[in-house]
Amino acid sequence: MALIVQKFGGTSVGNTDRIKNVARRVAEYRARGDKLVVVVSAMSGVTDGLIKLAKDITPLPSEREMDMLLATGEQQTIALTAIALHARDIPAVSMTGAQAGIVTDGVHTKAKIRNITPKQVHGFLNEGNVVIVAGFQGQTADGEITTLGRGGSDLTAIALAAALKADLCQIYTDVDGVYTADPRIVPDARKLDEIAYDEMLELAGAGAKVMQLRSVEFAKKFGVVFEVRSSLNDNPGTIVKEETRSMEDVVIRGVSLDKNQAKLTVVGIPDQPGRAARIFRSLGDATINVDMIVQSASHGAANASRATDISFTVDKPDLLKARKVLDALKPDLSFRDILTEDDIGKVSIVGVGMRSHTGIAGRMFEILGTQGINIDMISTSEIKISVVVQLAQGEQAVRALHQAFIS
Amino acid sequence: MALIVQKFGGTSVGNTDRIKNVARRVAEYRARGDKLVVVVSAMSGVTDGLIKLAKDITPLPSEREMDMLLATGEQQTIALTAIALHARDIPAVSMTGAQAGIVTDGVHTKAKIRNITPKQVHGFLNEGNVVIVAGFQGQTADGEITTLGRGGSDLTAIALAAALKADLCQIYTDVDGVYTADPRIVPDARKLDEIAYDEMLELAGAGAKVMQLRSVEFAKKFGVVFEVRSSLNDNPGTIVKEETRSMEDVVIRGVSLDKNQAKLTVVGIPDQPGRAARIFRSLGDATINVDMIVQSASHGAANASRATDISFTVDKPDLLKARKVLDALKPDLSFRDILTEDDIGKVSIVGVGMRSHTGIAGRMFEILGTQGINIDMISTSEIKISVVVQLAQGEQAVRALHQAFIS
Repeated sequence: MALIVQKFGGTSVGNTDRIKNVARRVAEYRARGDKLVVVVSAMSGVTDGLIKLAKDITPLPSEREMDMLLATGEQQTIALTAIALHARDIPAVSMTGAQAGIVTDGVHTKAKIRNITPKQVHGFLNEGNVVIVAGFQGQTADGEITTLGRGGSDLTAIALAAALKADLCQIYTDVDGVYTADPRIVPDARKLDEIAYDEMLELAGAGAKVMQLRSVEFAKKFGVVFEVRSSLNDNPGTIVKEETRSMEDVVIRGVSLDKNQAKLTVVGIPDQPGRAARIFRSLGDATINVDMIVQSASHGAANASRATDISFTVDKPDLLKARKVLDALKPDLSFRDILTEDDIGKVSIVGVGMRSHTGIAGRMFEILGTQGINIDMISTSEIKISVVVQLAQGEQAVRALHQAFIS
Repeated sequence: MALIVQKFGGTSVGNTDRIKNVARRVAEYRARGDKLVVVVSAMSGVTDGLIKLAKDITPLPSEREMDMLLATGEQQTIALTAIALHARDIPAVSMTGAQAGIVTDGVHTKAKIRNITPKQVHGFLNEGNVVIVAGFQGQTADGEITTLGRGGSDLTAIALAAALKADLCQIYTDVDGVYTADPRIVPDARKLDEIAYDEMLELAGAGAKVMQLRSVEFAKKFGVVFEVRSSLNDNPGTIVKEETRSMEDVVIRGVSLDKNQAKLTVVGIPDQPGRAARIFRSLGDATINVDMIVQSASHGAANASRATDISFTVDKPDLLKARKVLDALKPDLSFRDILTEDDIGKVSIVGVGMRSHTGIAGRMFEILGTQGINIDMISTSEIKISVVVQLAQGEQAVRALHQAFIS
């Protein structure tokens, strides 16, 4: 008899028929004798509807009150899911995040989980119930309702699995698992049976949209083995777990394309200490995430006139905001110009096998070269190599790399 | 500086414009320097929508889960109301029933308030906030979410006013206050400036639909003075409070018509001890409320064949259910027949002045007699006289009594 935490996202519980379908799946596991904790998101559309109501009143509603408002979405789903299980004669109780003992810090709309005291969850489980927990939410030690921000329901599931010492955590989603590449780009992409936390992290950071980074980070930190699988069929999914030695035999686990980046180049920055730091601190203050950074060699002859160019990428929606931050800095830092480019793609290859295999970067550049694909920026980590190419060539690059490294 | 509890029902917060309007009104009181606690219901339509979702899944959803589901309605309104106050630069915090310290018993969907520990409400008030509390809900000592059933938001407001020792409790609704009669029936009905708890109770019990009985009972028990007034205008409403000596000068405070009653007559019950008790116990077990009861004189000559008739009224929607209960008893109690009648109206006159004025019943019957209105059943309390008449003559009776006793 295993203890399993199952998480179903907003699409999987998007209407009462789908909620009944979740109940059917939960019933199957229960029939095997498993103990089950089910984490659900708000029904798709509900959260957006609530946000619209708040914005009808004022464009910038208070974050505390948005948490109060949005937490109702998951609370509705847990009740309906419990009701759907009752309709199958399965004892079930719903619990809000607060009731399930999920204690967070007080940073409304993006709270961090401080600790979980799942005493009541254990109690209900031991009485033979399926326990349905509202994802995405918790409460502070003072009893204030908080939400965990994007991907929060995944985090609830993984954190609960850790606190309950669950045997398995299943993240049900609308894809079959983690693929070697986006099947829409690479038709012969394969579903992976397993992937290491670090690989999953690098892929998520490289634009593969299966899960938010911090849920994977949390799972890695607490050693929670989880499975990403489809709520639409019964296929086994992808197990995400700590790296094993055999994983290193595979050099490249996956190839990804991130189309959501834009590039800015600050031209002619006087080459004096602290100027680059000023730029990135100002961007950070404006909560703009900077991804890749490349500084070109200084040019100019005399010391005083030496200048450098710095290119970096940001999320495309932040491009305008970043441009404004730089404009404001111009008088002070006296650089020459700002160039922006938003038709770029970041192509990444990821694999823990890179650690023990050499020459991967060279092979990657060679492959792209034979395809006539120009590389604009490069960044590497221990288990990832990313390059920026023209957006129009992004998919071609992914296909060529998948063909060479994986197929 | 007064502490005022204001309650706004579902219609008053039915959309974001109305919520803004509530905020405008709250702002006016705040500008006078009052401390404010605002109790709100779910936006009209929200609760029904949630019930429909649950019934889509199963016809008889669990009451615990219905509480979990429905409590979200008020939680949404409190957040939106706080946001609307923020938009007016008024500091405000929302609180669920649980957060406001409303502790109930565990009878889901119709919980009773056990006690209120409004420590956090006081805390937020003292920090200068308007405190917005979700009506209709509470939690048990174990942290289970409960709802208070029909009229629950009024009860929340009155109970909070008691616990906070508020100077005034205002119940905002869609009528201007309590009237001497329904203005749709009696065009010259007057709004009352004040009314005694007992009168309000008798009127509510007699079909005047301003408020649920138990909220008035609670107010009476804890001496909470409250005002029933309109959320659509700024007219003063009706103050409901403990009886004062001057109130006795008015013999009849109001006249009401209850069209929602039906009458059953059990004919020919053998006149033996306990048979009537059996009938009303069985009806009670089936949660059918019996209002008026009239037992006719026994008839028949010999002891063995003496029999009696019993007539009583129930809420019209319960007529069929009551009939079934009686049918089931028939073999056992061996009465002769069951007659039902649903075209009746209960006409009541109410006033604490009856205590010190005699002959009111006689005058009432006389007035109805001169109108050619036949009286079918009579019941009296210390401050109320009710008669059952033909439904078609009900409004005529109300007008005649209002004309004679009040105008």
